[in-house]
Amino acid sequence: MNEVSGPARRTVGVRTGGRSERVVAAVLEATLAELARVGFAAFRLEEVAERAKVAKTTLYRRWPTKAQLVVDALRSTAHDETIPDTGDLRHDLLLMIERTQKKMSTPHGRAIARVITTEGADKDNVELEALCRELRDEIRVKRRQVVTQAQEAGRLPPDADADLLLDAIYGGIMGRLLRFGERTDRPTCERIIDLVVTGAEHGGGAAPPKKRK
Amino acid sequence: MNEVSGPARRTVGVRTGGRSERVVAAVLEATLAELARVGFAAFRLEEVAERAKVAKTTLYRRWPTKAQLVVDALRSTAHDETIPDTGDLRHDLLLMIERTQKKMSTPHGRAIARVITTEGADKDNVELEALCRELRDEIRVKRRQVVTQAQEAGRLPPDADADLLLDAIYGGIMGRLLRFGERTDRPTCERIIDLVVTGAEHGGGAAPPKKRK
Repeated sequence: MNEVSGPARRTVGVRTGGRSERVVAAVLEATLAELARVGFAAFRLEEVAERAKVAKTTLYRRWPTKAQLVVDALRSTAHDETIPDTGDLRHDLLLMIERTQKKMSTPHGRAIARVITTEGADKDNVELEALCRELRDEIRVKRRQVVTQAQEAGRLPPDADADLLLDAIYGGIMGRLLRFGERTDRPTCERIIDLVVTGAEHGGGAAPPKKRK
Repeated sequence: MNEVSGPARRTVGVRTGGRSERVVAAVLEATLAELARVGFAAFRLEEVAERAKVAKTTLYRRWPTKAQLVVDALRSTAHDETIPDTGDLRHDLLLMIERTQKKMSTPHGRAIARVITTEGADKDNVELEALCRELRDEIRVKRRQVVTQAQEAGRLPPDADADLLLDAIYGGIMGRLLRFGERTDRPTCERIIDLVVTGAEHGGGAAPPKKRK
């Protein structure tokens, strides 16, 4: 058993040399490719070292456990999302949902989603589960921005609950895609977004005085 | 390979003798217990026959394939849901969501949910996948009733889309429970329901002239 020392270290800021950055990028890419190929359980650092042409010791130094490497790699794809700001919340949400669906529809994307949502939710895998939970929270915090920017522009009531709104929109659409491989078409996405945003505009599910955890 | 002849036969109406009904009930119960214990892949009819104290030939006569038996058993638990009608759509939905969460929170319920949503969504398992898809459609049709009864009573616009509303409410809540084992607390359920129903009351995501498939 490996020791877990606090939250996973971010790959950014580890060292800023150009070569080092290239090595990290190559390792993370190789990690994603391996994850897509074999999943987490069968994942081996040796394969990544070979794929990325890096010494195993280099890997171990930076990522003492398999779970830390895997979550850093997952984080690198999750964080390439930018939050759109077109001035129209419905349209921003549609862009985000379409991008996520597109990403998750490829065999590569589905394999990665499976690690986060299946193996990363396995209570028997304490370390990966904790790291994936942390990653999901980061993604959630990032996505919230699309709602808060609309609130700051006065286009949505200040007490609308961003998490609630995002859950209602992402829940059904991503659930159907991840569980059943069924992609929701654009008109249906637009209508789900309209249903939920209309609710928020009219004060539905407004946040209570104390923020839920 | 077994032949699949049309949709799965319903257990109801197969034969109405008292003994026959008891046998069917015992077999379906034994099937659910076995599914919870080993899942679909490792599921064996022999174990069910032994558990239910029924001859294997009796099983094979009624359920020519493993998938048919499993889906009939899943159907028997899914269909014990009655749709509440308290005169308040928000409250009806809360009762439904709480019941589903309660059912899916037990180890037994989670194991069964896993068969429907994981093994039953596996494209490699053609027969089980088709039967589970059919079962999901039945559940969806049944749940729609909670929305249509509110529409008939004039408490929701006639063009509100029941599927859209149910997906937005169930999606996030059940996704979190099934994927991460996290149960959504009652106040949060109430607020998700309020968010989505408020949207429907104000015409959000209204059904287009042609019903989506």
